[in-house]
Amino acid sequence: MALAPEVLTRLQSLLDSDALLTAEEDLIPYAFDGTAALRVMPGCVVFPRSTEQVAAVLKLANETATPVVTRGSGTGLSGGSLPVPDCIVLCLVRMDRMDEVDRANLTLLAEAGATTQAISDAATAAGLFYPPDPGSMKISSIGGNVAENSGGLRGLKYGVTRNYVMGLEVVLPDGEVLWTGNKCVKDVAGYSIKDVFIGSEGTLGVITKVLLKLIPKPETKRTMLATFAQMDQAAQTVSDIIAAQIIPCTLEFLDRTTIHCVDDYAKIGLPRDCEALLLMETDGAAPVVEAEAARMQEIARKNACKEVLVAKDEAEAARLASARRTAFAALARVMPTTILEDITVPRSQLAHMVRFVAEIAQKHNLRVGTFGHMGDGNLHPTFLTDERNEEEMHRVEAAFAELFDEAIRLGGTITGEHGVGVAKKKYLPRFADAASLRVMRELRRLFDPKGILNPGKVIDMPE
Amino acid sequence: MALAPEVLTRLQSLLDSDALLTAEEDLIPYAFDGTAALRVMPGCVVFPRSTEQVAAVLKLANETATPVVTRGSGTGLSGGSLPVPDCIVLCLVRMDRMDEVDRANLTLLAEAGATTQAISDAATAAGLFYPPDPGSMKISSIGGNVAENSGGLRGLKYGVTRNYVMGLEVVLPDGEVLWTGNKCVKDVAGYSIKDVFIGSEGTLGVITKVLLKLIPKPETKRTMLATFAQMDQAAQTVSDIIAAQIIPCTLEFLDRTTIHCVDDYAKIGLPRDCEALLLMETDGAAPVVEAEAARMQEIARKNACKEVLVAKDEAEAARLASARRTAFAALARVMPTTILEDITVPRSQLAHMVRFVAEIAQKHNLRVGTFGHMGDGNLHPTFLTDERNEEEMHRVEAAFAELFDEAIRLGGTITGEHGVGVAKKKYLPRFADAASLRVMRELRRLFDPKGILNPGKVIDMPE
Repeated sequence: MALAPEVLTRLQSLLDSDALLTAEEDLIPYAFDGTAALRVMPGCVVFPRSTEQVAAVLKLANETATPVVTRGSGTGLSGGSLPVPDCIVLCLVRMDRMDEVDRANLTLLAEAGATTQAISDAATAAGLFYPPDPGSMKISSIGGNVAENSGGLRGLKYGVTRNYVMGLEVVLPDGEVLWTGNKCVKDVAGYSIKDVFIGSEGTLGVITKVLLKLIPKPETKRTMLATFAQMDQAAQTVSDIIAAQIIPCTLEFLDRTTIHCVDDYAKIGLPRDCEALLLMETDGAAPVVEAEAARMQEIARKNACKEVLVAKDEAEAARLASARRTAFAALARVMPTTILEDITVPRSQLAHMVRFVAEIAQKHNLRVGTFGHMGDGNLHPTFLTDERNEEEMHRVEAAFAELFDEAIRLGGTITGEHGVGVAKKKYLPRFADAASLRVMRELRRLFDPKGILNPGKVIDMPE
Repeated sequence: MALAPEVLTRLQSLLDSDALLTAEEDLIPYAFDGTAALRVMPGCVVFPRSTEQVAAVLKLANETATPVVTRGSGTGLSGGSLPVPDCIVLCLVRMDRMDEVDRANLTLLAEAGATTQAISDAATAAGLFYPPDPGSMKISSIGGNVAENSGGLRGLKYGVTRNYVMGLEVVLPDGEVLWTGNKCVKDVAGYSIKDVFIGSEGTLGVITKVLLKLIPKPETKRTMLATFAQMDQAAQTVSDIIAAQIIPCTLEFLDRTTIHCVDDYAKIGLPRDCEALLLMETDGAAPVVEAEAARMQEIARKNACKEVLVAKDEAEAARLASARRTAFAALARVMPTTILEDITVPRSQLAHMVRFVAEIAQKHNLRVGTFGHMGDGNLHPTFLTDERNEEEMHRVEAAFAELFDEAIRLGGTITGEHGVGVAKKKYLPRFADAASLRVMRELRRLFDPKGILNPGKVIDMPE
């Protein structure tokens, strides 16, 4: 069933003249997000310019029971902004105004369509710092970051997007506008509705404005790259660093397959005879960074690291960091379809989980490269596949089921930072207990009784 | 209507033999919490020893539609654990087991009845740090801290209780046990139910276990006390410190009335001819603390501070900090009834708000001492009254209404860390918008359809 012509006519009357796409060729770029092998054609795409226009679109959609899928730049990795057939795609990229940077209260107010990079730049311009740095930050929108509760490379020390959200403007499915939060460091007046929207993946309301917390910019940073013959040595290095009361801003690893792919791609000159590469960064006040960097090198050496490269300047730091920053791109060019997962386990279980991923890949005869956030226990096993090979896709599915079960058994989660979306929806019941699932279903119905927002994602509402 | 004898008989069968109080003289200590002038007799008090016993009590209460009010040590300041007539008081103080300190993952698991001090001590014993330090931490229970999302003196740098909760075990009103969260630094699998319970003040479920995040212990701390002829000079000092990219762990102030009361009480030898006293603490690595402390003194002097005392050792630091730590006790002994509020405004509005409190007190002919968290914008105007004087109580009420309205006008909140409870329930609709209030009412019904948990607190459910 296509979108009713009446709905299209009414949409046109609610929006600017250039704010509605309906031609098939125009819709194609909005039929997918960053998730492999998923593509669904929407009925139309709209580009509101204001909260009022978002409210008007939702009101119409709610009245006519038309499904709505909200998106920003479409960089999501769990199909969270994948259209449902013939839906309205509500694309917020034109709502990208930076409203205010408040230096006295250390806050930033922006529209949801502003890019994470623009947020970061505005903070930097005010001499401040917005820490969350998801891999897609150059193009991802801040509204999408909040909806997915995005992580990044600095999670261990600085936390994730949730830790920086102080307030939200949200449009509910019936068009009502809700504001939650404020510039106060402390606020306990009523339930924390703000936190329900953070990470709700566009299923409970449409985030239109975000009020973010900023912090002082760390004075300096030291970047190091250590290589290990064995993954366990890298993991032990991470454990020992934390036992030494050091919380570095970055502790990222690549496994052997990823090292090879990265070096083929970026020609950094990485050693190829090692099982693990550890990117370590510490930031803060200069004397502390000095001391911590020295101690981290010492700990790496104690754990039999083969080599530690220490960046002498920012250019070299960027070169070393690029080993990690290019990991996904480097793996993605090897095979037609790259399927990236983000199981997460308690930090102490990470080395075990990396080994388990390799075993499972071998068992199912799959190629995998694993990289990720070693300080966070957040792994990105990346399967190098071809979606046209159905039989291989079945093996990938079977491997995932085993990986998720093991992560859960170890006290971990099926997704650390990419979201449930459609990609992990069927695994959510293995992770969450019966009471939690019931509450999630009922929450969905509470906010969106007609079920128009992002249907089929995260969790279904009760019958 | 008293509790049905049948309910009492069944309660007895569910609990240990010494776990049920019904005699009037035994119930009196459970008829109030730390909030002035509020007292309601419960029907009975029960002391479960396990999650199973909590579940059994709730199941019975839900079946028989008997109201349940959960409490720990009863130190709350908004009447959140005030009984409702003839309710079951569910007192969790016997569930105080410390289950685990996990040094590799930096987490602590404890039962809800453990005191905040015991949590803090267990963290310290493992060489780690649990930052939230509400004023009542020596006796308050961690479950109460989570239910109220308690703050403390370190909020500016370290955040509040919410920022340290990684997981919760909660019993729902029908007796179902729900677990939410885990030891992972990152987890985005489904809606954040954990965050709905944090700060829900015992109205959505009964928290029975908490999994907390710990951090490395700061290496050292420097404590300073600065006095100012004018409150604006103290406020400008705070603004300038933050503009200098310093986030101290403590920035607390006392006004003139509080300074006098404290010095009468604790004989610290505070200067009496000043309008504001600022307690400043910075912690972290030694060289950074040195540099920050020097810079903070310089900023205070630039803002015409009369004197800066710098603690030479821990004993002196404790003596200086006692000026702030004893503020409430010192004010409380002046008059029979001490009514403590905790309006919070964006930091940049704090000096204005302190002046406004003084004006309103004068207008209504009330005695007030104000102290609080200057870095957080969290004020504790403390009215020195006598609850037997009805006419004065009306003036207090009128003053509060004006204070709350002004805080809201400035973009602040009616409660920064004490909760809504019964004390601020009627002001919540002035603070939250219509959509938020509707969502809060519906959340309440979602979790507790029969309305047995802490009825009459925070917000009522829809008809």
